[in-house]
Amino acid sequence: MKLCLIGSRGHVWYVFESLPFLPEVNLAAMTTGRQGDSRDNLNAFAARANFSPAWYDDWQKMLDVEKPDIVSVDGPFEDHAKMCIAALERGIHVFCEKPIALTLEDLDAVEAAWRKSNAKIISMVGLRYDAAFYHAWTLVRSGAIGAIRLISTRKSYKLGTRPAFYGERATYGGTIPWVGSHAFVWFLCFSQADIVSVSAMHSSAENGGNGDMEIAALCQMKLSNGAFAQASIDILRPATAPTHGDDRIRLAGNNGVIEVADGVVRLIDGSGERTITPPPCPRKLFSDFVQELEGKSECLVTAEETFALTRAVLLAREAADTGKNISFP
Amino acid sequence: MKLCLIGSRGHVWYVFESLPFLPEVNLAAMTTGRQGDSRDNLNAFAARANFSPAWYDDWQKMLDVEKPDIVSVDGPFEDHAKMCIAALERGIHVFCEKPIALTLEDLDAVEAAWRKSNAKIISMVGLRYDAAFYHAWTLVRSGAIGAIRLISTRKSYKLGTRPAFYGERATYGGTIPWVGSHAFVWFLCFSQADIVSVSAMHSSAENGGNGDMEIAALCQMKLSNGAFAQASIDILRPATAPTHGDDRIRLAGNNGVIEVADGVVRLIDGSGERTITPPPCPRKLFSDFVQELEGKSECLVTAEETFALTRAVLLAREAADTGKNISFP
Repeated sequence: MKLCLIGSRGHVWYVFESLPFLPEVNLAAMTTGRQGDSRDNLNAFAARANFSPAWYDDWQKMLDVEKPDIVSVDGPFEDHAKMCIAALERGIHVFCEKPIALTLEDLDAVEAAWRKSNAKIISMVGLRYDAAFYHAWTLVRSGAIGAIRLISTRKSYKLGTRPAFYGERATYGGTIPWVGSHAFVWFLCFSQADIVSVSAMHSSAENGGNGDMEIAALCQMKLSNGAFAQASIDILRPATAPTHGDDRIRLAGNNGVIEVADGVVRLIDGSGERTITPPPCPRKLFSDFVQELEGKSECLVTAEETFALTRAVLLAREAADTGKNISFP
Repeated sequence: MKLCLIGSRGHVWYVFESLPFLPEVNLAAMTTGRQGDSRDNLNAFAARANFSPAWYDDWQKMLDVEKPDIVSVDGPFEDHAKMCIAALERGIHVFCEKPIALTLEDLDAVEAAWRKSNAKIISMVGLRYDAAFYHAWTLVRSGAIGAIRLISTRKSYKLGTRPAFYGERATYGGTIPWVGSHAFVWFLCFSQADIVSVSAMHSSAENGGNGDMEIAALCQMKLSNGAFAQASIDILRPATAPTHGDDRIRLAGNNGVIEVADGVVRLIDGSGERTITPPPCPRKLFSDFVQELEGKSECLVTAEETFALTRAVLLAREAADTGKNISFP
């Protein structure tokens, strides 16, 4: 399978962590997706993976000349949608950084292109494959806590030094879409339900001079199964903290409670409370996607979920912008 | 000082934990506040404290005959307001179970009675004096995390077997007021700000046959200092869990993060992350109240905060009932 890459602004490393296990995939060509973006990251990743892909300045030309089977879309956030559409129109499978669109109009256009295409698309929600979250998910799916009634999540990141594009809504998209996507995909995959309404708030006050970038946000949702879900999102994690991110989920069911924090799983069920060090996740996101394209297995992440996720974070952003409770279409 | 007690449906034990340290307080008389409520708890508490108080069937008669300096109000929840009003009208200081009223109309009436009275009133929000929460509060007040931007709280309880009055809104008041009061008072005391708006949701589905009682709730608030606050409230904690309650708070400031969970304090500041086993809290709620009445010191809990807290939980309940975002008066 022939692979091309556009950009490295986000999580393209999900591709590279899988390449050693995908001998059938050939990394043929790369572009930054934007003149002026550095080639250094992609060059370093490719060299470490023992590939010498061709370089393009023009991502559309790359798609037309190389005619890849798969493209990774990780260039400028505001170009995700048009790059996804161009690929889908050419029958090229898309592995796209989340969110795949920064506006609902762009999202509709991507979904329309996907409906007309034979190609598949998923977004880079790699935390589904994190060992602790994956193990918790398998426990929940096996009925360990009964029916889920309440979900609480935390996403907390360090601010660090951010490229200038984070400081503008038009090029960043907002913290609820960018950081919240991880929490929202947990809502969808753990509950196996739809989000039916959301209220939210966000603030860019005291954001270290990062323009429009929201530093803190809260989202609160009703799900189609009657459960409730909540996300606490911030970029207030101190620089001195031991890890970049503090990722947590707690699920309260009618027959138990499960919680992921600090890389371990805490389960309370009929046998009492215990802490479980999760086994390594046996799957990887990009490998899963390639193997689904090959008809070998099903990827945990689907196009349908990707569209639902993107719509949810954009509607939550709108709820925060307007102060309104928003019911989902 | 002469003390009378009405009822033991809630946290009257806050009185008894303080009595050994208050030799100036004489427990003169008690009533259950409702014919048919058991006298056993109060009798056992009083005996252990070496008091032999008189018993009354009629709480109003007790107030009129005994003319106490202080009354503890912990009878039927729906009678809190009228008992508070009767005491305040008689110039008797009130130590009342939270929430002090189950409706906004009743709350207004209590506040009006308080404004006309020389007596003081506070509610039994004893978790302010829990060792870990108190220590976290002293750290936050000393500037350990800078200005608070985001507050997340958890209140999770075991269901157990509940008296029938929990199953009716009219006699219980709802889970957001009953359980959420603890979380909401943290918002107020940690932020030193006012709540300006709330959105909320609650559900009584799968509540183990407990009538109207909500088993799960989420609340989300904006504060007057621009910070956001959130409460996850449930009665889904498994019977096998090691403790009755799972009480947590996390505060993200512009200069650090502090978290209370499992009885310890986790602080991340400029020096990195560390876990602090808190020293015992040097104060107790009821002792603090008595000492304020004696002019010796100031109680952490004030009448103003008690009214703000009660109004907040009742408005949050209304937000959950109606699905509306509610701006505070």
